[in-house]
Amino acid sequence: MTDVIKTIAILGGTGDLGTGLARRWVQAGYNVVIGSRTQEKAEQAATELQALMQERGVTEASVQPMDNLAAAEAGDIVVLTVPFSHQISTLESVKSSLENKILIDVTVPLVPPKVGRVQLPEGGSAGQIAQNFLGEQTQVVSAFQNVAAHHLQEGHALDCDVLVCGDKKVAREAVINLVEAAGMRGFHAGPIANAAAVEAMTSVLITINRQYKCHAGIRISGIEQ
Amino acid sequence: MTDVIKTIAILGGTGDLGTGLARRWVQAGYNVVIGSRTQEKAEQAATELQALMQERGVTEASVQPMDNLAAAEAGDIVVLTVPFSHQISTLESVKSSLENKILIDVTVPLVPPKVGRVQLPEGGSAGQIAQNFLGEQTQVVSAFQNVAAHHLQEGHALDCDVLVCGDKKVAREAVINLVEAAGMRGFHAGPIANAAAVEAMTSVLITINRQYKCHAGIRISGIEQ
Repeated sequence: MTDVIKTIAILGGTGDLGTGLARRWVQAGYNVVIGSRTQEKAEQAATELQALMQERGVTEASVQPMDNLAAAEAGDIVVLTVPFSHQISTLESVKSSLENKILIDVTVPLVPPKVGRVQLPEGGSAGQIAQNFLGEQTQVVSAFQNVAAHHLQEGHALDCDVLVCGDKKVAREAVINLVEAAGMRGFHAGPIANAAAVEAMTSVLITINRQYKCHAGIRISGIEQ
Repeated sequence: MTDVIKTIAILGGTGDLGTGLARRWVQAGYNVVIGSRTQEKAEQAATELQALMQERGVTEASVQPMDNLAAAEAGDIVVLTVPFSHQISTLESVKSSLENKILIDVTVPLVPPKVGRVQLPEGGSAGQIAQNFLGEQTQVVSAFQNVAAHHLQEGHALDCDVLVCGDKKVAREAVINLVEAAGMRGFHAGPIANAAAVEAMTSVLITINRQYKCHAGIRISGIEQ
């Protein structure tokens, strides 16, 4: 299921992070489906994305707007970028479409208003919750929680790495390829349980952003790839 | 309590990380107390440290070996670098000596044998557990969990950052000064609850070390200091 990824469906693809990922992957030549709760919002986002790609000189931009369910059906791989409070309801609505696919879970379990404070959910992490909910039919791989949407949306080079967690190596490998296509280094970071570390780190980065007025990310040091 | 730090006591100072920190701080000119469960082990470690400093051309190396209790008494600031399974028993034995001091908690709640898998304790994190146990009389600041002991022990420049968590800014600030004295950048990373992120990240780094045969660390990107 990993060597035929041509179409990437992004559920919640109109949000900040979804928009950033869509831009990177369209630019890398993938067919990207923007999924949203309504067809109308998806269409608006797709139109904007097409216009931006034209501005950036990308001649062939392959983008399709769909509602989340149709998007999940259409994707060879599916990316979930909705707020934590909508994670399970969104997965419920598309569950059967995810069978035998990889779901990239980008959910961060922030608890407003204290989003700079680590407050992991029962169940350990959003990634683990998704894997438990979807069962063995779907490989959940968690990634991209520590990437600033701001930087993804811009066209410039990215100065951060992506930690990729999931129970199956072949699924992590497929996601690492997409990380690289988006312009970053991706690292095998262990089983889906380890998503807890990466999700928690997002609150630390939010704290650092506020404290130092920046858009911080993390890099893995001490390794040459 | 933060501007008079001359003596740093390291409980569990004979372990890998304690040894590395001791070397860095002695070299930076601090008076370092090596604490251990027995005076004898502390003396052996202090002798080795003195010899190494001489090798490295450090003419004034101020090191004292003590048992953990005497060390905690002697330190202006106290560092805990024992295994998680000994964290609370060690703190119990020195609790009253920590009043009105900062405790730097370096404990990582690894659960052998699966140390590459994130398994956070009830209570959220080792740092939070220490703060709860010691109460308001002691400021617990968590730091150094993501630094490879191997790199600390060597004399060369360090390519990693330190995330510093604690409920009081002035206490974090004092620890950030010691991070810098040890040759790294330190960042305000939020309240002690956020130690969960940093402690969990250690398991991710262990996974990366095994996968990529390295001594990985993390760097914060997207920020100029």
